[in-house]
Amino acid sequence: MAGASGYAGGEILRLLLAHPDLEIGALCAASNAGTTLGEHHPHLVPLADRRLEPATPELLARHDVVFLALPHGASAALAAELPDEVVVVDCGADFRLRDGAAWEEFYGSPHAGTWPYGLPELPTVVDGEVVKSRAALEGSRRVAVPGCYPTAASIALAPGFAAGLLDPQDVVVVAASGTSGAGKSLKPHLLGAEVMGSMTPYGVGGSHRHTPEIEQNLAALAGAPTTLSFTPTLAPMARGILATCTARLASPDTTDEQVRAAWDEVYRDEPFVHLLPAGRLPRTADVIGSNSIHVQVVVDRRVGRVVAMAAIDNLCKGTAGAAVQSANLALGLPETTGLPVVGVAP
Amino acid sequence: MAGASGYAGGEILRLLLAHPDLEIGALCAASNAGTTLGEHHPHLVPLADRRLEPATPELLARHDVVFLALPHGASAALAAELPDEVVVVDCGADFRLRDGAAWEEFYGSPHAGTWPYGLPELPTVVDGEVVKSRAALEGSRRVAVPGCYPTAASIALAPGFAAGLLDPQDVVVVAASGTSGAGKSLKPHLLGAEVMGSMTPYGVGGSHRHTPEIEQNLAALAGAPTTLSFTPTLAPMARGILATCTARLASPDTTDEQVRAAWDEVYRDEPFVHLLPAGRLPRTADVIGSNSIHVQVVVDRRVGRVVAMAAIDNLCKGTAGAAVQSANLALGLPETTGLPVVGVAP
Amino acid sequence: MAGASGYAGGEILRLLLAHPDLEIGALCAASNAGTTLGEHHPHLVPLADRRLEPATPELLARHDVVFLALPHGASAALAAELPDEVVVVDCGADFRLRDGAAWEEFYGSPHAGTWPYGLPELPTVVDGEVVKSRAALEGSRRVAVPGCYPTAASIALAPGFAAGLLDPQDVVVVAASGTSGAGKSLKPHLLGAEVMGSMTPYGVGGSHRHTPEIEQNLAALAGAPTTLSFTPTLAPMARGILATCTARLASPDTTDEQVRAAWDEVYRDEPFVHLLPAGRLPRTADVIGSNSIHVQVVVDRRVGRVVAMAAIDNLCKGTAGAAVQSANLALGLPETTGLPVVGVAP
Amino acid sequence: MAGASGYAGGEILRLLLAHPDLEIGALCAASNAGTTLGEHHPHLVPLADRRLEPATPELLARHDVVFLALPHGASAALAAELPDEVVVVDCGADFRLRDGAAWEEFYGSPHAGTWPYGLPELPTVVDGEVVKSRAALEGSRRVAVPGCYPTAASIALAPGFAAGLLDPQDVVVVAASGTSGAGKSLKPHLLGAEVMGSMTPYGVGGSHRHTPEIEQNLAALAGAPTTLSFTPTLAPMARGILATCTARLASPDTTDEQVRAAWDEVYRDEPFVHLLPAGRLPRTADVIGSNSIHVQVVVDRRVGRVVAMAAIDNLCKGTAGAAVQSANLALGLPETTGLPVVGVAP
Repeated sequence: MAGASGYAGGEILRLLLAHPDLEIGALCAASNAGTTLGEHHPHLVPLADRRLEPATPELLARHDVVFLALPHGASAALAAELPDEVVVVDCGADFRLRDGAAWEEFYGSPHAGTWPYGLPELPTVVDGEVVKSRAALEGSRRVAVPGCYPTAASIALAPGFAAGLLDPQDVVVVAASGTSGAGKSLKPHLLGAEVMGSMTPYGVGGSHRHTPEIEQNLAALAGAPTTLSFTPTLAPMARGILATCTARLASPDTTDEQVRAAWDEVYRDEPFVHLLPAGRLPRTADVIGSNSIHVQVVVDRRVGRVVAMAAIDNLCKGTAGAAVQSANLALGLPETTGLPVVGVAP
Repeated sequence: MAGASGYAGGEILRLLLAHPDLEIGALCAASNAGTTLGEHHPHLVPLADRRLEPATPELLARHDVVFLALPHGASAALAAELPDEVVVVDCGADFRLRDGAAWEEFYGSPHAGTWPYGLPELPTVVDGEVVKSRAALEGSRRVAVPGCYPTAASIALAPGFAAGLLDPQDVVVVAASGTSGAGKSLKPHLLGAEVMGSMTPYGVGGSHRHTPEIEQNLAALAGAPTTLSFTPTLAPMARGILATCTARLASPDTTDEQVRAAWDEVYRDEPFVHLLPAGRLPRTADVIGSNSIHVQVVVDRRVGRVVAMAAIDNLCKGTAGAAVQSANLALGLPETTGLPVVGVAP
Repeated sequence: MAGASGYAGGEILRLLLAHPDLEIGALCAASNAGTTLGEHHPHLVPLADRRLEPATPELLARHDVVFLALPHGASAALAAELPDEVVVVDCGADFRLRDGAAWEEFYGSPHAGTWPYGLPELPTVVDGEVVKSRAALEGSRRVAVPGCYPTAASIALAPGFAAGLLDPQDVVVVAASGTSGAGKSLKPHLLGAEVMGSMTPYGVGGSHRHTPEIEQNLAALAGAPTTLSFTPTLAPMARGILATCTARLASPDTTDEQVRAAWDEVYRDEPFVHLLPAGRLPRTADVIGSNSIHVQVVVDRRVGRVVAMAAIDNLCKGTAGAAVQSANLALGLPETTGLPVVGVAP
Repeated sequence: MAGASGYAGGEILRLLLAHPDLEIGALCAASNAGTTLGEHHPHLVPLADRRLEPATPELLARHDVVFLALPHGASAALAAELPDEVVVVDCGADFRLRDGAAWEEFYGSPHAGTWPYGLPELPTVVDGEVVKSRAALEGSRRVAVPGCYPTAASIALAPGFAAGLLDPQDVVVVAASGTSGAGKSLKPHLLGAEVMGSMTPYGVGGSHRHTPEIEQNLAALAGAPTTLSFTPTLAPMARGILATCTARLASPDTTDEQVRAAWDEVYRDEPFVHLLPAGRLPRTADVIGSNSIHVQVVVDRRVGRVVAMAAIDNLCKGTAGAAVQSANLALGLPETTGLPVVGVAP
């Protein structure tokens, strides 16, 4: 594992400590190499004395599975030096986008490629048919873990596009994230005194890097480009994302039952996606620490739009949980192995 | 003042304690009559021993200004018994809507009427001309204080509609509010253990009662009905509203400069509305305890939409501050008297 | 399980869902009988549709283990009707105190009796020898789960008293608790808007009911009555207790090494008690969702006192975790079965 | 003002903006010189475009009052170069301690001297008589603003020592502070994701630098050295300190009435110290943004101790409010000028 001292790395380790079939190998870090894990993640008591090593390809290559939890752009170079037979699960953005131009526009560097997308329950279109993304992950040696916002927004809206019920124009997503989503960067606006008791938007006007990723997921289902207005906001909580997503109904005749049936059909058998009973709305508290997504969808007849909402734990299902879930699929293990379904609430 | 034991009532009293020209008269309450104010608002030390009295018209009529901070629907009956010459400032919804049908649809009771709308800085159209709402408040004996969400959303979007830059279709507002917005109701989902660390939507699908009020404000400027998708969310903070609002540009040729100029022109001289410098985004923390609104507007060229954001203190500018500001106008006092411009941050 | 709709009940169910050897039986409640569990604990998705039944002795008696998560005073009557061979784990206070007079003073009702104390890692004196409390739990059919504050404070201080290093006079404990500790009671001071951003003491002056319980635990080790000043405070967080405990060194000659050795000796082999490395201090975030206790002890030479601190999750180790841990012992299962060691941080 | 970009500096400016008799002069900073104030304090809208200048003695000397909000140890050098007739109000620790040895032990540098202590309402002993500290501040040209913890703890306990009711041995203070108390330092443990939902102690074992300051204040009244165990804790809130303080009654015969009378006598006429009615306990929320201190005192008969509690806003009464209050006294203005009595709650 590379990037063990960050939040994503810590969460992967938390999950692996409870995983019956995966053993924790070398813990690597960049500037924190030489320190112990306990200095960075005091909650990971069983690993407190493990020393962080520099992330060399040689060291990582000795493992069956390598989790990369690195800053965007750092994974590609490292991954290029890892043997094909090692399962490489990249929590960064490097291999998420299929469109090289979109990558270059949003990340400002050459596009490294595209790996199977680590959101198993996402419906997508392959050869004209709607299938789940997990097909491409089974047995794969490379996995691009989705961004946290794209996970929430795509799962919230995908059934409507898969069923052709939604108009790909004028999709709007406003999402609130806990501040762990910004990582451990030492920036003044992330200080506790700044974030507690305050809400603030950021990456406004389509500039957030998760924008093309959400568009890619939805457009693949819509069969047409989407226009997505995406605004992330920072909420006074450590973990959690609530995505509030809205899109026009393609036809005013679509009934509430059709809408609900579309969502139900896609997620009915998913172990981690929970379409809430009518009348109940998702709360981030209910999924904290778990790999679950709570989803609700409501039709606003007055304006002919659907409002679809999803709550996830940005660090777990939004990053580390998806990484472990995808690794399970890559390794041929039961997909749910070692992954909590139930959040720590209240 | 009627409704002194609730959050809105407490905030009005906090402001009045610092107001040089208004003296605090009788403090009234319904079920809390007989108790002291200190039991409900321990922060209002100078009023701690004041006893709450039942809110009778006789008692209230003895004052120059009466603030009503009552549950929706309770103001109309009381107001009907107050003499015309008393300034009545209603923090409830009873007199906000002009459309009786919309009132009945959303509030389920007969429409009591329409009073001047207590958002002085809101541009509106009167006889085909864009004017500020304060005109109708000066010297008025009746004021309908706006809802907290409508204040934030309307101020955020109004300049674009006033300047004809925005399309009234597919307007989307997602707003996050601190939990004081729900009042002191003893409901399980408002317990601290439930709300801390959690975000959750409510009133989804256009069912929130502030929906027609926002529409009314925007439609008056757009000169056409708007279709508004409004989703409020509950955020883990005591105070504050962040409204994230987006609407399509009426024309793709509109420049960023035109957009900014439209917002600047409307708010340049407003003492409480602060259009942030380009690149800075509103934070609720910056307006807590103040009567200010921090606004920013950004164009998302990729999708041809404007994103307009506003941060307010839901209890202050969102309720009590607007009430005092309107009372100042009604009484012929300088509009800013007794109202803080600067928030308590961090 | 009786009391399934409350916080303690929900947490027991969260743990049992991950327990390999215990199957969840009937879910009982008092006023909430007839509702579904999902209405009270939306995070417990796998049990969402389970209906709550009235807590009758007949129904409960059909189980191997019965967890009682009831208001104080309600367990005794119910327990009296349960057969001896059923393992009854009471999360209430009814059977915690040995001193009937203390019970009556603090709880104002007749003393129901004393059951084995469900804090397995607590050293106590039996027949003049220091042993762990787990001895009395193995195979027991009755368990009194400790209070949350007593768990934190007793574990923090016990080694010093067990080793005779501390003076039982002038012990002071100040503890901060998340608001879930107050349960789901609908009281104004527990509303989110009241608790967020605020710290406040309560039960001041020795009146909190956990006072005699902490004294009982410490006095048993000190071999003498203790005088304990205990002040609980309510902190703006959902879960967690931080207990800051201080006691005079019995002798000024006691070295830092002796102090550390005393704590290390008692907890070295405990799976859930983690004496932090020197220089690191406990944080409640590190134990949230886990059954762990993080402990540190420091000598303040200037004043001849020891400062011992402990962090726990009040709902997990402080209640539900201890209940499951004790049930494991009662049933002859490995003590750690189904109990998380690692908290959900950040 | 030097140190305008930090939290203390920002709070002083917030207060000065509302001060009728003080005009804001040059805003100085060290590494932030050249930037605008708006980048650091977006809430201070009226000063947003003011540019920060380097803090040179020449520039500062041109003002009637100079507020220093600098890191500990930085004030002394700067102050030495300021003319005697300028009122210098130091928010740092440099001139708080009378005992040079204590200074050197806790701060590790040569002692710069002792200035009048800026806590006007603190009783202290001068020539054998108990007087308030404000006497030394009236007309003074130099003021040492107290530390935030010493303000809360000293005000909480002082009346008991002034009246000879308390034993100076085995005094214990445990205090919880919002994280703004740690300033804007970019340290991982101060990140929002780390502090939200968590309580943690720090400076344990008497090592916190406020320890000798509290001792100094209490010993001056007790007429004897005190032994103080002081533990500060970090609470998940932006502002506020709750100090829970306990000391033994000197005599078991002291009645509750005597205790209450002692506190009442000292604070009865103080505009900012509010002894709460019996039965009510201080909450930090009630004093946020204000210069007030809410105090309660309770006798714990079982153990013969007094528990005295105080809630303050660490940035306001704990720093900036005390600075302005002291400046008012130094300048001969009414002491309460420009200082809010009522906090922003909820």
